[in-house]
Amino acid sequence: MKDEFKLIRKLLASASRSIEGGGDFIKVPPGDDACLLSGLRNPVITTDTHRENIHFSFDWQTPEEIGRKAVSVTLSDLAASYAKPVSLFVNLGIPSPFSEKTAEELYKGIGRGLAEYNCTLGGGNISGSDLLSLDLFAIGEGSADLFPLRSEAKPGDGLYCTGPLGMARAGIDLLKKKDTEFQSLVNSFKFPKPRFDAAKVLLNHGIRCVIDISDGLKGDAMHLAEASNVTIELSIDRRNIDHDLTAFCEKYRLKPEDMAIAGGEDYELLFSCSQDVYGKLKKDLPDAYPVGQCLMFTGKHILAPSSELSSFQHGR
Amino acid sequence: MKDEFKLIRKLLASASRSIEGGGDFIKVPPGDDACLLSGLRNPVITTDTHRENIHFSFDWQTPEEIGRKAVSVTLSDLAASYAKPVSLFVNLGIPSPFSEKTAEELYKGIGRGLAEYNCTLGGGNISGSDLLSLDLFAIGEGSADLFPLRSEAKPGDGLYCTGPLGMARAGIDLLKKKDTEFQSLVNSFKFPKPRFDAAKVLLNHGIRCVIDISDGLKGDAMHLAEASNVTIELSIDRRNIDHDLTAFCEKYRLKPEDMAIAGGEDYELLFSCSQDVYGKLKKDLPDAYPVGQCLMFTGKHILAPSSELSSFQHGR
Repeated sequence: MKDEFKLIRKLLASASRSIEGGGDFIKVPPGDDACLLSGLRNPVITTDTHRENIHFSFDWQTPEEIGRKAVSVTLSDLAASYAKPVSLFVNLGIPSPFSEKTAEELYKGIGRGLAEYNCTLGGGNISGSDLLSLDLFAIGEGSADLFPLRSEAKPGDGLYCTGPLGMARAGIDLLKKKDTEFQSLVNSFKFPKPRFDAAKVLLNHGIRCVIDISDGLKGDAMHLAEASNVTIELSIDRRNIDHDLTAFCEKYRLKPEDMAIAGGEDYELLFSCSQDVYGKLKKDLPDAYPVGQCLMFTGKHILAPSSELSSFQHGR
Repeated sequence: MKDEFKLIRKLLASASRSIEGGGDFIKVPPGDDACLLSGLRNPVITTDTHRENIHFSFDWQTPEEIGRKAVSVTLSDLAASYAKPVSLFVNLGIPSPFSEKTAEELYKGIGRGLAEYNCTLGGGNISGSDLLSLDLFAIGEGSADLFPLRSEAKPGDGLYCTGPLGMARAGIDLLKKKDTEFQSLVNSFKFPKPRFDAAKVLLNHGIRCVIDISDGLKGDAMHLAEASNVTIELSIDRRNIDHDLTAFCEKYRLKPEDMAIAGGEDYELLFSCSQDVYGKLKKDLPDAYPVGQCLMFTGKHILAPSSELSSFQHGR
């Protein structure tokens, strides 16, 4: 175990150094008791956990894919908060034995995820564990103008989404079925993209109510509805559903709307605003489309088409 | 499992609200995707992991003691960096089943640890796990004047410590032996105190080389010596060893110096400076005492009296 720790510390140090622009953010790099960052006007903090056999599996993901996705998923919460990534900290729980090759690939993936969004690796901690776990902690610089909240949905607002839904859920189903068709769906599951680009547009249009879709449209709309004390009526137009997802659903006799509403790990942004604002914003974000309406609270937070799929839960 | 998550989210929210002064630091509290803090001039970040049967055990610690100690130990790295606690984030891995009473006591301990050092709970994450784990991320506001480093020890410096060593190691030995004598030693293991008070004195005297002693004097002196490229010659005067530790060592036929040098989890601060500076500083920090000398690197980083105890390792 001791040599593995040494190896991983080495990888941590090299991943940290490899990020260009790290010097702008990190004043004192990992290695001391703590890391000193440059001053932050609006520090935005988020944490996430990725555990073997709950959030990922070596059965269908390579170590590099696992590392890269853990970073993307954590940074997605910064995108949903209009914050620019600054630094990520990774606490690793590693099982014994843990091969040098696996550790190297895991860090390669973490490094790749960080480089994609110009984020530094600030440090972390390593300890023994029964299964591999990654606890990630990301720090971002928030917008000086606006911190979006899930509690800002108003009756009368429309509910909108920045991109296609349900693809990642189909992707993990394909991996479990060992079906090699529809690689675009598998890629949606393996390589989610935090929507920093879409967040920029939403911020420019003053959108105050945003959440990223990790638990699925229904699950995350529920979070919005509860926090805002509104009822949300969900509806998905079939024309907004991805072609490959539609073909997948035909093959497996599933309803595409069910997959879009109940599927998880999309990491698109869900937001609410007036129809007027949506009309203007749509020009800058052509992939956005309506997924529902916010109503006065009727006693039930979510009204959704009946579905045979249960809401997405990790590890089920 | 789902109900347990709900309960813990409730406890997280209540622990967060219960911290006085939280409003000064936390602009948007836990509950959204991310937490927004007030601006930080010198953000200092540290991470720590506490895993069942490696870092703690329900065999000899209550859930409240486990929560409180996890907080203190994490904040100790901020003390060693001259940073004032701002906010703590806790990622919990909880086994199933996990009783409501255990969860409540764990959070009571976390809340107590936070209140002792005027730190807020910024948020966290909960997921299933085989054994209980706490991944903690602490954010502090560093000093504008000085960020101490482990690489600043110079040949000719003395090496000093802010308080008694070896007591926590004896404490865990007593718990394992089910020996109820020497409660002060057990308390040293159960209730470590981050030395923010001593850090303030060290900062006032411009001490540039500081580390907190978690791995034991020998282990952490090694970290200083490696980072500073010096040889450290350790020596402990028996007069600086705690009376109860001396009595414990008599009972179990151990050398008190061995316990002080190899024992871990003391969380005192280890620092280096010239004898002149130490002479002035000692007036403000009467419990400080010398534990060694920094020399030109001789090819070996640590010279220590021969010992029958191996260096401290968690979970061994």
